[in-house]
Amino acid sequence: MLRLHGFAVSNYFNMAKLALLEKGVDFEINTVRGSQDAEFLAMSPRGKVPCLETEQGFISETNVILEYIDETQGGKSLLPSDPFARATVRALAKEVELYIELPARSCYPEVFFGGKVEQNVKDKAKAELQAGVAALRRHGSFSPYVAGSEMTIADILFLFSIDLAQAVAKKLFGLDLLGDWPEAQALLELLSKNPNVQRIETDKKAEMAAFIAAMSGPGK
Amino acid sequence: MLRLHGFAVSNYFNMAKLALLEKGVDFEINTVRGSQDAEFLAMSPRGKVPCLETEQGFISETNVILEYIDETQGGKSLLPSDPFARATVRALAKEVELYIELPARSCYPEVFFGGKVEQNVKDKAKAELQAGVAALRRHGSFSPYVAGSEMTIADILFLFSIDLAQAVAKKLFGLDLLGDWPEAQALLELLSKNPNVQRIETDKKAEMAAFIAAMSGPGK
Repeated sequence: MLRLHGFAVSNYFNMAKLALLEKGVDFEINTVRGSQDAEFLAMSPRGKVPCLETEQGFISETNVILEYIDETQGGKSLLPSDPFARATVRALAKEVELYIELPARSCYPEVFFGGKVEQNVKDKAKAELQAGVAALRRHGSFSPYVAGSEMTIADILFLFSIDLAQAVAKKLFGLDLLGDWPEAQALLELLSKNPNVQRIETDKKAEMAAFIAAMSGPGK
Repeated sequence: MLRLHGFAVSNYFNMAKLALLEKGVDFEINTVRGSQDAEFLAMSPRGKVPCLETEQGFISETNVILEYIDETQGGKSLLPSDPFARATVRALAKEVELYIELPARSCYPEVFFGGKVEQNVKDKAKAELQAGVAALRRHGSFSPYVAGSEMTIADILFLFSIDLAQAVAKKLFGLDLLGDWPEAQALLELLSKNPNVQRIETDKKAEMAAFIAAMSGPGK
């Protein structure tokens, strides 16, 4: 049986979990944080979560896990079969990751964990976030899903990235990324009614208090 | 006919170009730099090169272009057919991109273009580069190729990332990323004998002087 390693507050873990739930895959969860310990690095070479344990070994990197799940498991497809349409979905997912999630991530220590982020890092994150959102608006379909009429991996990336990016933009830059973007609001509203998304939210809330305590502790 | 947009000094452009050459695809090149002009953004949503023009439209993001080329064009495969092996190749390619190329990239302005990079950015790049190389050494096979006996997209990412990362590490941190890594040296030596790699190097050298002049000009 597939075994997903990670924890319920990790947005990337939740992307992989949603893919498994959406496809109706039977899987186990091993709750674990990312680590640079030798034992964990043998599972995930850069020490990050999630990683997926299969009968053949471990797979890391969320988009790679999503593609593997889609290729090997039954249930609905999370990528189109036409190569050009598939490339478009992959590009949209990558744009969310590189141009929205990653710049927002550079500010998580200050926004979520009581730390400080230097001004040059914030300035760069702000410019990149604005350009990233503009790119996604330009390229995405949002009718109603990011790439069109079907839910794909691009929606999974979007769902678990835009909320954190929105929090960063509001708190640090006074920007509302979603304010004049009704299509994105409508998609988030639609996804919030998905029972698998609701289950992930519930699991996340249950784990959040312990996570915040651990991240805000001495030396973190 | 496929048309690849970009320029011969761009390492990501050269990744896509090598994939096309290795597969023996008939293609055209449109020499163009990345831009935030509306016309270019309609081709590449974040304004970056390369982008690939197909009969159905444009594809951006290098790894997405590589997968599209492999899926739709004849010639040798750049990804294995077994899903787990394919996931491993994709993860290796992603590790090179996120954990080696991207941190190195944050220092390119100082290393290649006569600019200055702030100390906190350099400190972060140094730590990430070292961890990224360690991750790749841990996960890669290098026997002789990154993922094993066949050349894959992981080699393409590696070839056009490690040279720049090596230059950054040497100049800014006094580190030799390849010094105690004979497997990587052997792979670079092997790839340097590939006629398509040689052609790309020749094209790059021919364009380099004009590129440096443009990047070092006023306001750049």
